[in-house]
Amino acid sequence: MKTLRVPEATVTRLSIYSRFLERLDRNGITTVSSGEIAEGVGVSPAQVRKDLAYFGEFGTRGVGYNVKDLLKYTLKILGLDQEWALAIVGAGNLGFALCTYRGFNVRGFHIVGVFDNDPTRIGKRIGDLVVQPLTLFPEIAQKENIRIGVIAVPTSAAQEVADMMVKNGVEAVLNFAPVAINVPDEIEMRNVDLSVKLEILTFNLGFRNAQSL
Amino acid sequence: MKTLRVPEATVTRLSIYSRFLERLDRNGITTVSSGEIAEGVGVSPAQVRKDLAYFGEFGTRGVGYNVKDLLKYTLKILGLDQEWALAIVGAGNLGFALCTYRGFNVRGFHIVGVFDNDPTRIGKRIGDLVVQPLTLFPEIAQKENIRIGVIAVPTSAAQEVADMMVKNGVEAVLNFAPVAINVPDEIEMRNVDLSVKLEILTFNLGFRNAQSL
Repeated sequence: MKTLRVPEATVTRLSIYSRFLERLDRNGITTVSSGEIAEGVGVSPAQVRKDLAYFGEFGTRGVGYNVKDLLKYTLKILGLDQEWALAIVGAGNLGFALCTYRGFNVRGFHIVGVFDNDPTRIGKRIGDLVVQPLTLFPEIAQKENIRIGVIAVPTSAAQEVADMMVKNGVEAVLNFAPVAINVPDEIEMRNVDLSVKLEILTFNLGFRNAQSL
Repeated sequence: MKTLRVPEATVTRLSIYSRFLERLDRNGITTVSSGEIAEGVGVSPAQVRKDLAYFGEFGTRGVGYNVKDLLKYTLKILGLDQEWALAIVGAGNLGFALCTYRGFNVRGFHIVGVFDNDPTRIGKRIGDLVVQPLTLFPEIAQKENIRIGVIAVPTSAAQEVADMMVKNGVEAVLNFAPVAINVPDEIEMRNVDLSVKLEILTFNLGFRNAQSL
């Protein structure tokens, strides 16, 4: 793998391309052009080619890409050719939603535990999972080799939960609490703010109205 | 407002800057430098200056930005100086989580309805809201002037729900169902895939491991 820096937007699109390729593959389609990928996911063909070029040479001019090969390669680039044990801390509405969210138990990800410290939640069943007391996190993290921790607790508890995850060997943290948390540099961390996309909508609506005046 | 095209990544950061400015304002801080904003949100000072430059001249060299003014201006740019009535369709785990998600009922957004067609969900209380039958969407959309529709239904129902929203005057759609949906060009639409960020984490972990070999 090359060592040049890949923009996060490219990685995001790669993730989206790979889902599109999965759909093609399921439908028995064997080759695809950059134009077809572009149309399928809503970006320009030049963008598709530029994104894929970060990772080497793909496809044959005039023939396009082999779907299975490109899918396999994109999954490998995304690190999805291996299993990632994942734990969710926080079994409120959001934690429940994430436990049953299709995207969290496919493509290499495997939810191995959901934790809470609220006695009324501990023991509750969510699909195949049972809410575990937070005190069991260290033991289960070691046993199941939890590499990704998902924070779905209230703002006030987020930093404490992150610290506990890091202390117990988690390599990456996905934080849904709307607050900045600190982790050591060697830990990968991303925040998901569910409302940022709302503001992209209102920005565009406002912008459009301003332009049409 | 200028009519140049603003990258979506800039709008996303603007949304994040404005949250940081809100925090400063709450804490009684009156001026801030681009360096301080940059440090507060984790980007470079040059990026902050570049992003803000899209929207005109701000700040005074050596003094920085007036927090209240910049906050007010960023909110206006994001379209948050007005009220946006928002409805959530789908009262499963995700719909429940979104109804109580702090970011969906602040900064100009106001949830005026949550809808489902499952009789076991209709009538349930979520905070101040009561789950309404989907058949009442047209009536409530008109009465409450619903401008933003949030889709939190299973994949199979997403397109149908989007069509119904558009038919009833919704201007913007935020889709949490992991499926591509089609809306007319004049409708603003964004998909939220909660698992894309997971794959950014695994990409980065894989990349780091590859580089350290």
